[in-house]
Amino acid sequence: MAARGGMPGEFAAIARYFRPLATHPGSYGLRDDLAWLAPRAGRRLVYKTDAIVVGVHTFRDDPPDLVARKALRVNLSDLAAKGARPLGYLLALVLPAETKAAWLARFAAGLGADQKEFGIPLLGGDLTRTPGPPTISITAIGEAPAGRPLLRGGARRGDLVFVSGTIGDAALGLLALKGRLPRLAARHRRFLAGRYLLPEPRLALGRAIAPLAHAAMDVSDGLVADLGHICAASGCGAEIDLTAVPASPAAQQAGERHTLARLTGGDDYELLFAAPLSAEAGLRAAARKTGVPVARIGRIVPGAGVRVLGPEGGEVPIRTGGWQHF
Amino acid sequence: MAARGGMPGEFAAIARYFRPLATHPGSYGLRDDLAWLAPRAGRRLVYKTDAIVVGVHTFRDDPPDLVARKALRVNLSDLAAKGARPLGYLLALVLPAETKAAWLARFAAGLGADQKEFGIPLLGGDLTRTPGPPTISITAIGEAPAGRPLLRGGARRGDLVFVSGTIGDAALGLLALKGRLPRLAARHRRFLAGRYLLPEPRLALGRAIAPLAHAAMDVSDGLVADLGHICAASGCGAEIDLTAVPASPAAQQAGERHTLARLTGGDDYELLFAAPLSAEAGLRAAARKTGVPVARIGRIVPGAGVRVLGPEGGEVPIRTGGWQHF
Repeated sequence: MAARGGMPGEFAAIARYFRPLATHPGSYGLRDDLAWLAPRAGRRLVYKTDAIVVGVHTFRDDPPDLVARKALRVNLSDLAAKGARPLGYLLALVLPAETKAAWLARFAAGLGADQKEFGIPLLGGDLTRTPGPPTISITAIGEAPAGRPLLRGGARRGDLVFVSGTIGDAALGLLALKGRLPRLAARHRRFLAGRYLLPEPRLALGRAIAPLAHAAMDVSDGLVADLGHICAASGCGAEIDLTAVPASPAAQQAGERHTLARLTGGDDYELLFAAPLSAEAGLRAAARKTGVPVARIGRIVPGAGVRVLGPEGGEVPIRTGGWQHF
Repeated sequence: MAARGGMPGEFAAIARYFRPLATHPGSYGLRDDLAWLAPRAGRRLVYKTDAIVVGVHTFRDDPPDLVARKALRVNLSDLAAKGARPLGYLLALVLPAETKAAWLARFAAGLGADQKEFGIPLLGGDLTRTPGPPTISITAIGEAPAGRPLLRGGARRGDLVFVSGTIGDAALGLLALKGRLPRLAARHRRFLAGRYLLPEPRLALGRAIAPLAHAAMDVSDGLVADLGHICAASGCGAEIDLTAVPASPAAQQAGERHTLARLTGGDDYELLFAAPLSAEAGLRAAARKTGVPVARIGRIVPGAGVRVLGPEGGEVPIRTGGWQHF
């Protein structure tokens, strides 16, 4: 994010809003053309890039600080699911020419809040214009132990399937924001909307479970679709016990008619992982230590695909959709 | 660029067009959620992110293979200017829903051609949609010696100023593509257009001069503006001898009335650097070894800002503009 381009707006915007975020020595206060970052000895650097388009992945008028934080957090969530610790990030920020200074200020304030929360600096980036909607591409850099990486493809027959936190809140939050849950108590609607707008990357839990799990990813496309990704990568199938899928009090209040939305809606950014029975005590300890609940929701089985089993053990038909990115 | 999202289009597009580009073991064939990359011992990893918006940084209907290669090369050029060797890149590709498979195929073919040329793999990324124009954000990762980095801010009074290649071709190429150089020979117009559409990152030269130069960057905003960046970062001024600024045969043919465009137009992606007189022999040797000419065009002086001196030594008035990014 060196100040390229002659227009004072660009220089001023970088100096005012983004330079204060560039606290790592390798970013040179965004005054040069690239950044460096070194891992500690015995660690490897890992990378994740995701883009957020305002109006596609967010509502058109979502608060800019929340847009910024979500754009950062969806990347941190992938680092979390691989047991990596975030070290910093780069930002390619593409904005309409008519973007207001107030929007930029709130956007940068959101990044600043999350930098403090996660202890990571802005390393560099690019600020440019578009006739389209604001588009935020973030590359998160993390460090992971140099040993066996935690991938999607490591699940084995007989593994148990676990999730962190509660599932389906973000899908219900999206419904709430669209005014589709009018009878739900306001405090529940606020909770669900918050879960959609501001995901919580499970970084500490991810690091704690990484040595114990065989496969992991974050729930971004929806529980059934994402478990399907693990199954496809691992060459196996999975069964989910519907009643074991953890629901928040707000989701419970929303009722059973939203079960399908909860299982297939995206954006929860909880951890989904497969681990052997022998790891269960360690996983419980990791959950206690990090304060993030872990629930056992099913098992890895021979075959392919994901089956959801109801209270009586019969299969619940699920159309596995998942979020359509493109 | 793991296959997230349920729409077959996304999975199919990633598998067909981008998986063949992901040749590094740390990218897991784009089947997982992040990538790793390790530097060799004694090197540091460096990063650069730049975004290209089709219709803003390119013409609306530029060939997609050239768009892809330019998006990659503008990042490689920054690595070159810092003496770094590129190791790989991540791609956040944001496309309109109506993007044709043929566009994607040519885009990926362009990346593939440059991967071969520069010996770098696609490490990971994201494919998503936008109601706006195609937007390509690339994060290039390189490795540089762990010692003193080559920055904008190291120029010292008495240093000489050098550039690689020829200056102003891209600005004239843009004019040629707009039909504004009708009297120029077709082969010259083609040469100039090529210099605009497909910049040549000076990677080998950058590594060769890095130990010799005090400050460096690539010429992307225009020669005068970029030398101004070096001056501002170094706390000094600079003088350019107009007649010493190297012009290609095509630019010479275009004539003197385009001098201002040549000095202030962007997109050349040549190297611009300051080095002491004692380094000049080494710089000449580096130029011979890499086959990229290096020209001495001026000097670092006390004060601030850039002055352009004409053949008689008098100052040529230049409005320092540079490309307006935002």
